[in-house]
Amino acid sequence: MTSPPAQASTSVGIVTPQTAQFDTPIALRSGAVIPRYQLVYETYGELNAARSNAVLICHALSGNHHVAGRYTEHDKYPGWWDNMVGPGKPIDTNRFFVIGVNNLGGCHGSTGPSSINPETGKPWGSRFPLVTVDDWVETQARLANRLGIEQFAAVVGGSLGGMQALQWSITYPDRLRHCLVIAAAPKLTAQNIAFNDVARQAILSDPEFHGGDYYAYGVTPKRGLRLARMLGHITYLSDDVMGTKFGRILRSGTFQFGYDVEFEIESYLRYQGDKFAASFDANTYLLMTKALDYFDPTHHYESGHLSEALAPAKANFLVIAFTSDWRFAPERSREIVKALLDNERNVTYAEVKSTHGHDAFLMVDPYYHEVVRTYMGNIAL
Amino acid sequence: MTSPPAQASTSVGIVTPQTAQFDTPIALRSGAVIPRYQLVYETYGELNAARSNAVLICHALSGNHHVAGRYTEHDKYPGWWDNMVGPGKPIDTNRFFVIGVNNLGGCHGSTGPSSINPETGKPWGSRFPLVTVDDWVETQARLANRLGIEQFAAVVGGSLGGMQALQWSITYPDRLRHCLVIAAAPKLTAQNIAFNDVARQAILSDPEFHGGDYYAYGVTPKRGLRLARMLGHITYLSDDVMGTKFGRILRSGTFQFGYDVEFEIESYLRYQGDKFAASFDANTYLLMTKALDYFDPTHHYESGHLSEALAPAKANFLVIAFTSDWRFAPERSREIVKALLDNERNVTYAEVKSTHGHDAFLMVDPYYHEVVRTYMGNIAL
Repeated sequence: MTSPPAQASTSVGIVTPQTAQFDTPIALRSGAVIPRYQLVYETYGELNAARSNAVLICHALSGNHHVAGRYTEHDKYPGWWDNMVGPGKPIDTNRFFVIGVNNLGGCHGSTGPSSINPETGKPWGSRFPLVTVDDWVETQARLANRLGIEQFAAVVGGSLGGMQALQWSITYPDRLRHCLVIAAAPKLTAQNIAFNDVARQAILSDPEFHGGDYYAYGVTPKRGLRLARMLGHITYLSDDVMGTKFGRILRSGTFQFGYDVEFEIESYLRYQGDKFAASFDANTYLLMTKALDYFDPTHHYESGHLSEALAPAKANFLVIAFTSDWRFAPERSREIVKALLDNERNVTYAEVKSTHGHDAFLMVDPYYHEVVRTYMGNIAL
Repeated sequence: MTSPPAQASTSVGIVTPQTAQFDTPIALRSGAVIPRYQLVYETYGELNAARSNAVLICHALSGNHHVAGRYTEHDKYPGWWDNMVGPGKPIDTNRFFVIGVNNLGGCHGSTGPSSINPETGKPWGSRFPLVTVDDWVETQARLANRLGIEQFAAVVGGSLGGMQALQWSITYPDRLRHCLVIAAAPKLTAQNIAFNDVARQAILSDPEFHGGDYYAYGVTPKRGLRLARMLGHITYLSDDVMGTKFGRILRSGTFQFGYDVEFEIESYLRYQGDKFAASFDANTYLLMTKALDYFDPTHHYESGHLSEALAPAKANFLVIAFTSDWRFAPERSREIVKALLDNERNVTYAEVKSTHGHDAFLMVDPYYHEVVRTYMGNIAL
């Protein structure tokens, strides 16, 4: 639901989120059942008569449905992928009908741990079940049904969002023609899981976590969430870009010999941690990290071979990795490419030279954007 | 002070720590003065008549003076570098008089934040000043004076210990003939500092930290220290060795969909964190990480050139790096080698192939140990 562009002609302009209620229970991979739930989403561009131009954008750890545009003219920041999605942009809303959705378990309007559990009249908190990438694909598919979309032109995602796109190609091979998997990995390594677990332990051991039911106490485990985000940020940036941006620059020019900020990098990290802890729900952060840990399309296969897991996929693929991404390094994307080639799928693979680490997938890079633009431009509607 | 070997002939056997009291105030780099202090240390082997065979071992972040041997016959674990130091070992106590010392600010007997401040009769806590690598070198030099050692045959250290060895060569160029700098770096990168700051923030924001004066409350900031250690462990191990040792192995074979241990790597990290938090002082951990951050021999030089900073050094050097160490990667050791070569110093450099990451410097590796053995064996006494 897009109003005319407010400022620049490459913006989708002022946008309004919408809500879809689902009263059919959903059985999750964990065995838990959520009786009813809502998903909040945004759309940009127009669904064509053939209903063949829909693109689903799947969000990453801390993302949401607000992909592009602004809520008011005075909104300081646009949606999280506004540089990628809009009229004339790589994912061109003049051509595509683009959908952003806040995943189940989120904290931006979709049903999640901070939502009211209708059975108790209180926030779900610790009773909210863990969700997996498979579960998200299922809820996204139900939203597609609701919107009358039988088949997506493309499902697109970066990082954890790329894992959802990949899972779409396995679960619903006939429901997407193209799959864009950006800065992702076929499953986490032990080191990836280790970083996630430190982040989780920071939250779980915060005395204000109260077993996940902090809502009732009027507090939030903000110390833990802040630490989790600070740590996350280190893994989103490359060593190089941290060195270039911050190096060993001192805030006051000399050592202070205390525990206040000495180096600019400390100031940056603490600021990012504080900002995030003030605005994001800790339970959602926890479950998002678990969804990352659990993701493993080979889990059902004794062989453990990704090629076997990807055999059902029919889509054409664009896989993109960034050279300085050490969270999900290019090697991990190449595993996906190799497994797709084993299945004789059409795969385009781009390894983008970038110093920005994992975060590069969110940033403007002419080559990266041109690859996406060209790929999307070639999609037949 | 070494008794005859208790069991194996390659062990220094049962050892007893000693204490040196210093009543001359020490002015620290921060401007703070410690009026009097003690250092606890151990020695292995015998000082020769010429007093030319002394070797100083500098410890890293969580190390101490207990380098080799055991305290009792039933001691489960020997000193932290027992595989390197002993009769017939690479640092051969049949030939060398080896000294291990707990640094000022430590928590294993030397004066530190948990020691009683004679002025108040209470633990130093938040009043204990921050110390730097330069300060440690100064206190170690005073200990050497006390022991009648004018010149060390070698000063040796890994990681933060390697930085102390390097600083020795700058501060007291005539007091060491050889300098062994292992798995170190000439200064921390922004990423290194960032990891340290997350660890510190975990401790500082623990409600049981009480501004550093937790001793009076009968508590310790164990949650924060546990997180700091878990995080540290990730940076000590390589991604590869974590993958080989733990991979995605599940503790119970299936997903539990909760926040208890699912993956073996989580179990390992939490165990390491708990063990450390129960035995190490949080204030000491904080100040050790700050000493790492502050270390930068080029700090006094406008050029910022390491070559200029190392110009005073006269020692011969052995520099060792490990291929899978991403905390202090071989590139960082090569910076040291380059700066020493710029000054036409004698440098031996070994880049050891290892999958063990930063921790490799503590482990048995035949090539690594042979390099140290050969180098030490060639030292003229």
